[in-house]
Amino acid sequence: MLLKRLLVGLPLKTTQAIHERLSKRLALAAFASDPLSSVAYATEEILLVLVLAGTATVVWSIPISLTIVLLLSILTMSYRQIIFEYPEGGGAYTVAKSNLGELPGLTAAAALMIDYVLTVSVSVAAGVAAVTSAVPSLFPHRELMGLLAILLVMIVNLRGLRESGRIFAVPTYLFIGAILVMLAVGLAQFLFGRSGQMAAGQGGNPVPAVEGLTLFLLLRAFSSGCTALTGMETISNGVSAFKRPESKNAALTMVGMATILGTMFLGISALAYHFGILPKEDETVVSQIARATFGQGPLYYLVQASTMMILILAANSAFNGFPRLASILARDSYMPHQMALMGDRLVFSNGIMILGVFSGLLIILFQGDTHALIPLYAVGVFLSFTLAQAGMVRRWVVKRGRHWRKKLIINGVGAVATGVATGIIASTKFLHGAWIVVALIPLIIVWFRTVHGHYRAVAEQIVLERDHRPPVPRQNIVLIPISGVNRAVIRAVDYARSRPGDIRAVLVDVDKEDTARTEMQWAQWGCGVPLVVLPSPYRSVLRSLLDYIEEVLEKDPQTWVTVVLPEILPARWWQNILHNQRALMLKAALLFKERVVLTDVPFHLER
Amino acid sequence: MLLKRLLVGLPLKTTQAIHERLSKRLALAAFASDPLSSVAYATEEILLVLVLAGTATVVWSIPISLTIVLLLSILTMSYRQIIFEYPEGGGAYTVAKSNLGELPGLTAAAALMIDYVLTVSVSVAAGVAAVTSAVPSLFPHRELMGLLAILLVMIVNLRGLRESGRIFAVPTYLFIGAILVMLAVGLAQFLFGRSGQMAAGQGGNPVPAVEGLTLFLLLRAFSSGCTALTGMETISNGVSAFKRPESKNAALTMVGMATILGTMFLGISALAYHFGILPKEDETVVSQIARATFGQGPLYYLVQASTMMILILAANSAFNGFPRLASILARDSYMPHQMALMGDRLVFSNGIMILGVFSGLLIILFQGDTHALIPLYAVGVFLSFTLAQAGMVRRWVVKRGRHWRKKLIINGVGAVATGVATGIIASTKFLHGAWIVVALIPLIIVWFRTVHGHYRAVAEQIVLERDHRPPVPRQNIVLIPISGVNRAVIRAVDYARSRPGDIRAVLVDVDKEDTARTEMQWAQWGCGVPLVVLPSPYRSVLRSLLDYIEEVLEKDPQTWVTVVLPEILPARWWQNILHNQRALMLKAALLFKERVVLTDVPFHLER
Repeated sequence: MLLKRLLVGLPLKTTQAIHERLSKRLALAAFASDPLSSVAYATEEILLVLVLAGTATVVWSIPISLTIVLLLSILTMSYRQIIFEYPEGGGAYTVAKSNLGELPGLTAAAALMIDYVLTVSVSVAAGVAAVTSAVPSLFPHRELMGLLAILLVMIVNLRGLRESGRIFAVPTYLFIGAILVMLAVGLAQFLFGRSGQMAAGQGGNPVPAVEGLTLFLLLRAFSSGCTALTGMETISNGVSAFKRPESKNAALTMVGMATILGTMFLGISALAYHFGILPKEDETVVSQIARATFGQGPLYYLVQASTMMILILAANSAFNGFPRLASILARDSYMPHQMALMGDRLVFSNGIMILGVFSGLLIILFQGDTHALIPLYAVGVFLSFTLAQAGMVRRWVVKRGRHWRKKLIINGVGAVATGVATGIIASTKFLHGAWIVVALIPLIIVWFRTVHGHYRAVAEQIVLERDHRPPVPRQNIVLIPISGVNRAVIRAVDYARSRPGDIRAVLVDVDKEDTARTEMQWAQWGCGVPLVVLPSPYRSVLRSLLDYIEEVLEKDPQTWVTVVLPEILPARWWQNILHNQRALMLKAALLFKERVVLTDVPFHLER
Repeated sequence: MLLKRLLVGLPLKTTQAIHERLSKRLALAAFASDPLSSVAYATEEILLVLVLAGTATVVWSIPISLTIVLLLSILTMSYRQIIFEYPEGGGAYTVAKSNLGELPGLTAAAALMIDYVLTVSVSVAAGVAAVTSAVPSLFPHRELMGLLAILLVMIVNLRGLRESGRIFAVPTYLFIGAILVMLAVGLAQFLFGRSGQMAAGQGGNPVPAVEGLTLFLLLRAFSSGCTALTGMETISNGVSAFKRPESKNAALTMVGMATILGTMFLGISALAYHFGILPKEDETVVSQIARATFGQGPLYYLVQASTMMILILAANSAFNGFPRLASILARDSYMPHQMALMGDRLVFSNGIMILGVFSGLLIILFQGDTHALIPLYAVGVFLSFTLAQAGMVRRWVVKRGRHWRKKLIINGVGAVATGVATGIIASTKFLHGAWIVVALIPLIIVWFRTVHGHYRAVAEQIVLERDHRPPVPRQNIVLIPISGVNRAVIRAVDYARSRPGDIRAVLVDVDKEDTARTEMQWAQWGCGVPLVVLPSPYRSVLRSLLDYIEEVLEKDPQTWVTVVLPEILPARWWQNILHNQRALMLKAALLFKERVVLTDVPFHLER
């Protein structure tokens, strides 16, 4: 408890949950960390695929990047419309469910949940890679560093991050600034003739080709690059956090964010090509570019530090999104209801902890390696994009309204483009890990539906019908099983006698001598409560007790049986294995008996 | 439950626990499997050490075996006296505790518990080795075979092995017979000139020496051979199972057993030397001897099969001894009391399962390899021998009586001889594994004492003193926390009303609308029970409830508070994660409050 308070802080009042409305500038910082941070790895992932066909193929990174920027502008147009149509926040789940029905909605929800887990794992892994690029001696510890980063973000979120906007502004604008300066300096070097290939001083060795340059390889590189677009949906989820007019401000911010994202991504791809940079195992492409541009100076470290910070912020944004999605699903009874319970600190603690555990597991399973995680990443994201755009298409068809044809075309183009991208990503990355996501989505949907079905069945079973008459109070026979006379037993008797009724102590006769002694002691201490002595042919206390309870229940079908158990509560947890083994067995045996109710009367030991 | 019945059988009545008294012949079979079976590996273990100094050193196996047989006769004389002195069965724990005090008793108990676990592991590993010697293709599966054998013996013992004597007679006498025939044939071959070295046809290649022939090496070989004496104490533990006059019959059986053991052990060592047999990784020495004597015929397979069977019986005998020792310790409060609870089938089920788990773990840790386990084995056994003999020495000094000087000398020689052997074993095998046992014994003793201390503290805390007055019945306020009105809630109200008293339903106002609806429903269904509505500034249901309970307790220091919780019991176990999370938290929070008692009223769902 104390530890919890130290880590998580004091509880907050509901009235403290005031929504702080964000200006465009702060909102950009709060929502853009996830999409912008992906430029830290997207170019590298493209290059990693291309070099398989040899160094010369790297030139293809430019047209691929341009295609992705085209996709970015289509998506931005598409999402602008969602922002205006769903000012209360239109996640892919909401849009798909309200326009396409339950199954597409749940598919989007499953894809999004996977996506959130991967956002954390990938961002943290990439953030750690930014650090180990600058400080190579930390490279062997990246798994541990990743886990610690997740733990940190998790604790921060369990505390509740109210002032998110302002805190996020610093590293986000630092990152944007650092990258833009790097691009400007790199561009100047290009224009004023300093040879890039020389400046890099390392990427020069040609890499032998291990695969031919096929269309499939180019599509794979495109798929890898699509990770640049992950996080695009964040602004559309958070429209309600903007200052009035919410939708307009959110839409403007979205366009601004897309412009910055496109510029940075294209710039990094171009500079990487200019400097002839190839991916290396122990240094990121961005780090290589920064080193080539700035040398090993303070500006280089600024790029690395701000990259690391924005990636951690991206992970943090998933800790906002996942619990909120889980709570929406819980309210719709597709997830356990406790996911919708807010904790002391006005956050959905369960969702935060589940996200932390799963993303940590991924870090362990994939040894904190960004490249190993990437193939799993984009499938879920693009599937949810596609479902959201398709939902909008269907919405325009049904709802119509002003300019609906134009809007239909915009979302239609978005749906087709993201749908094609989803297909390309799923097929080219299938064997590299996307199959895991493809297999998981239906499983998660089955889980959603099972939970939903169960809650519906429960509701049907516990609902009070009109003709359900108030029950008539019945009798209640109180049994106190004892094996001797001591303070714990007397306490239980004391408790049972605090309300009038038919109270009996029950002793199983396992050993004649013990029984006789207990009977004598009972005469002195039993407070007049009758003592029933049961024979025990099988010397099983449990069996004799159960038989007797069964007998009492049969004799009077109108009675409850309350079993009052004297329970010794040890002072230390490990001492529990020294006590109450019989009580535990009795509880397990009685749990499914109708009309039998168990009451533990604890006797607290002090040492 | 059904599975348990299938595996374990129907419960037995106490009256079915008649002690079947054993004749000398049956008793020999019942008790001798453990000591006799050790000839299956003892010679091999001696040779394994000696060959380290080269093939020529193997001749030392004969004097070492003779020394061990001398030790055997000293031990037999010593144990005869224990048999007469402790006709109710004198385990090392009993003898050491009653004559030397608590610490030596607990030391003996710890050593014995380790010894039992190792008896199972070593015997099963050696039994599997007997099988894989005959069927080499099974060699890679020895770990799995060992685990299956332990599982089998465990299940058989959980069923209860009443008719042990008769069942054991067959394989024990088969083993004795097969080995004696093998020795006779081998002796005949020796006398009538067939060259042993030729017959073996394989052991001829001289092995290069990797160590010099030092005194330390000889002592190590002696230590390994001492495993031949493991199990010597079994007859003295089971005196009460013999026909009258118990002690005399037991003593005679002991001498008979020792004679057979000595003969077989010496014979095997002699034949191994005669045939020039050296230990091989994938075939036991006994198997090599049997092959050399009989060829690959039916008699060879008889030796292997009966060796396997007697080793499994030896493992089985530990499944008798360990739970019995644990139950004695539990009765003395050195082990958790549930170790003394007999199960349905008149066996100490907990002890049997613990032994199975630990010996299985050893098989896994040591990959089912007898040789790896042996260094751990003899230390515990000889330590308990020493303590038992030392206890007897002390007994004679204190008690005196007829011929006490003679008896003192016999046990004194026994104590010194086994003490010296213990020292030799512990020091020569220390680095090979004996250190584990040397380190474990004190840890186990600390555990015994901790348990003992706890039970004593509990007894002091729960004992009723003379002036402890019968308590006065107090008030009892019954609270029913609800979050809505449904059948489960009505059932809990119904239960609470079955006894008169101050009953209140408690609702935490988290949502104004919900609260109003629930209040209206309560008016209809609440059976007149008053509804208390609590404010919830922190929207934590738990916190508001706790505050209210605290308030009630403070207001009336003479009242109990009974919290009646409507609990939905799902039809399937996994559905529990969808329910009762709040109830669980409430229980945890209330567990340590004095005067608060929790009562779950289950509502059983059908689907």
